[in-house]
Amino acid sequence: MKLPKLITTVYAHCDLMCGVYDPAQARIEAQSVYNAAKKYADSKDPVFKQRAVQIKEERAQLAKEHLWVLWTDYFKPEHVEKFPQLHDLFWRATKAAGEAKKSMEVTAAEDLIKLVDEIGGIFAQTKPGYDYDAVRKNAELQAA
Amino acid sequence: MKLPKLITTVYAHCDLMCGVYDPAQARIEAQSVYNAAKKYADSKDPVFKQRAVQIKEERAQLAKEHLWVLWTDYFKPEHVEKFPQLHDLFWRATKAAGEAKKSMEVTAAEDLIKLVDEIGGIFAQTKPGYDYDAVRKNAELQAA
Amino acid sequence: MKLPKLITTVYAHCDLMCGVYDPAQARIEAQSVYNAAKKYADSKDPVFKQRAVQIKEERAQLAKEHLWVLWTDYFKPEHVEKFPQLHDLFWRATKAAGEAKKSMEVTAAEDLIKLVDEIGGIFAQTKPGYDYDAVRKNAELQAA
Amino acid sequence: MKLPKLITTVYAHCDLMCGVYDPAQARIEAQSVYNAAKKYADSKDPVFKQRAVQIKEERAQLAKEHLWVLWTDYFKPEHVEKFPQLHDLFWRATKAAGEAKKSMEVTAAEDLIKLVDEIGGIFAQTKPGYDYDAVRKNAELQAA
Amino acid sequence: MKLPKLITTVYAHCDLMCGVYDPAQARIEAQSVYNAAKKYADSKDPVFKQRAVQIKEERAQLAKEHLWVLWTDYFKPEHVEKFPQLHDLFWRATKAAGEAKKSMEVTAAEDLIKLVDEIGGIFAQTKPGYDYDAVRKNAELQAA
Amino acid sequence: MKLPKLITTVYAHCDLMCGVYDPAQARIEAQSVYNAAKKYADSKDPVFKQRAVQIKEERAQLAKEHLWVLWTDYFKPEHVEKFPQLHDLFWRATKAAGEAKKSMEVTAAEDLIKLVDEIGGIFAQTKPGYDYDAVRKNAELQAA
Repeated sequence: MKLPKLITTVYAHCDLMCGVYDPAQARIEAQSVYNAAKKYADSKDPVFKQRAVQIKEERAQLAKEHLWVLWTDYFKPEHVEKFPQLHDLFWRATKAAGEAKKSMEVTAAEDLIKLVDEIGGIFAQTKPGYDYDAVRKNAELQAA
Repeated sequence: MKLPKLITTVYAHCDLMCGVYDPAQARIEAQSVYNAAKKYADSKDPVFKQRAVQIKEERAQLAKEHLWVLWTDYFKPEHVEKFPQLHDLFWRATKAAGEAKKSMEVTAAEDLIKLVDEIGGIFAQTKPGYDYDAVRKNAELQAA
Repeated sequence: MKLPKLITTVYAHCDLMCGVYDPAQARIEAQSVYNAAKKYADSKDPVFKQRAVQIKEERAQLAKEHLWVLWTDYFKPEHVEKFPQLHDLFWRATKAAGEAKKSMEVTAAEDLIKLVDEIGGIFAQTKPGYDYDAVRKNAELQAA
Repeated sequence: MKLPKLITTVYAHCDLMCGVYDPAQARIEAQSVYNAAKKYADSKDPVFKQRAVQIKEERAQLAKEHLWVLWTDYFKPEHVEKFPQLHDLFWRATKAAGEAKKSMEVTAAEDLIKLVDEIGGIFAQTKPGYDYDAVRKNAELQAA
Repeated sequence: MKLPKLITTVYAHCDLMCGVYDPAQARIEAQSVYNAAKKYADSKDPVFKQRAVQIKEERAQLAKEHLWVLWTDYFKPEHVEKFPQLHDLFWRATKAAGEAKKSMEVTAAEDLIKLVDEIGGIFAQTKPGYDYDAVRKNAELQAA
Repeated sequence: MKLPKLITTVYAHCDLMCGVYDPAQARIEAQSVYNAAKKYADSKDPVFKQRAVQIKEERAQLAKEHLWVLWTDYFKPEHVEKFPQLHDLFWRATKAAGEAKKSMEVTAAEDLIKLVDEIGGIFAQTKPGYDYDAVRKNAELQAA
């Protein structure tokens, strides 16, 4: 059968040349999305508000991309066995990033952050010694 | 409960502002990956071979990105219900794009094309009138 | 004489390493431009309208780039001999992409689509078996 | 008749919002292409040579893009009337940029520079006071 | 001692493979920033104004990036010795590019241009024969 | 006097709309540079080695860009007063990123990491509660 063999090969090759994966990258961008939504809500200057919409869009796109890379490149079949919710969780998290582009509600950014944190928690379970709490706290320090 | 509500909202918003989704974009890039692998194998010129590795890498990255966008932005909960293999299929397809970066084997590109075609077939089933066969034939015409 | 020699060399090298060229890429982006203009016109939500302007701008830029690549990289001197309008057609098509950035009129997007379709028709004549009608129909299925 | 009307509109709109166009951008990148080809030829270090191929590729792509923008966005119908060779000149120049990616010969970079200079000369004729000679001399100062 | 050694190495390697550096690139983008701010001020069309904000943002970003590259890649320890204001000048110039994103005032763009011109003057002193005055005049010709 | 006033304005505006700044972004990319250099040294597969050179180049570029953004956008005049070495430190760190592109030595990546860590330590001093040690440890966990 073809596909299981393919996955095995991917896994083997990845051991040779996987890069550095870190949910901090998505978490930092998600924080920027939140800050932009917050500042949008607090401002009355139309140019500032336009720029906040635009910057939020770019940051949500980056959060989405970092999440996609984690999903496809970092996680492996044995992780999916252990965390069967993984595919659906990433799907909802990347959809939440899309939603955070469309909506100016601060709650849309909060939904994104919550899902990234859920992914960060799973990531930490797969990598002994990784401190996701520090990542979250560092990001929260920078809240608008 | 939070998350089902989120998905519903995403779905509703997407009806207002979803773009144009077309698996032809991923299929065209997958063909480029195949052509680059083929030309790499057929050449003895070291600079040509270096450029083939590089161009294959870029094209596989684009195939991966087009697949991620389809997965997150086009497909909706009711599609996943009807095609329960969807998440795993996209995971294997984007991993195959990664594999096609790493490997110079033409078979790695063929694996990617097969998975993109499987996704294209499902896409066509969700969009009455969409002709994925023509997409595939147009791409194959351009095979190296 | 220098330049004819240059062109001959380009042609020869291109046979060794040309990628995959497909007017479907420009056609898909032109459809996105049309959809964004349509949705802009139909909406009263200022943030939605801002995002439609921005997304239309990005998609028109991609349409422009795909057209430039086709013009420079795919078409060769013998095509220009057979289709003497080619240079002017691409010039007008890429200018129409620029115009579709500036104007919020749906007709600007329609002008772009018409010119891309004209190019697609010529492309099909240079590549026996290529089905541009299917490309056009697949794109129209996704009209806003 | 449709198309002449389109062109007129483009022209009018461009007067309202055209950016800053300057052939110096393409000339600088063409110089980088030349320097990379020169340094490639002069080196025996394989990593250095690989990087020179890659950097040359990126710089030639930028030269190509700057040329495309000049062609589509700066030049207008009355310029084409006055300089009937314009379309063909830009086609050859952007093809020369492609050739300068493929070939490691210094002469390929020289061909590109010659064509960019020809375009720069025409540009200067359309913009009284523009000093293209200074652009050329500044670039030549930085030759490898 | 570690760091002086590092700098020496950088300097030596850079002699082998430095690219082409030219303050004209930053100056051209700074002129675009100015033109966009001017046109924003002169227009009453809300879509045009939105696009001017966005285009100004992108051009200021490019000016910033060209300045960073000059600072890190072109200038060397002996230049900093001769022009001790160099670090602070680049810091203020890149901050002025950021300011020119935020502010719609034409004076913000003028501040950026003045700092780029100051850098261009220093650059010319480090490169005998380089004509920065021509760069400035060419850019000014294209003022909105 | 002009410039001090400019800086004051920048500072004030930044309070309204600065994003999220985090040295973790540069640290993660610096770790990737290190891993790529390490894997390059350990491999005998020429395609793998080519890809390691290329990936190292891209990651070093991202490290450089994250550093530039921190320098220009996060740090303010009062920080420079308190940490007078700041400009020179960033200059050496971004030059070390350039050096880590050129050199295949693992020590070049180590030099970059050391300078990023020095910047991270200063950043932590300017932001009470920020845990740079956790950032460093998380990155080191992913060493090749």
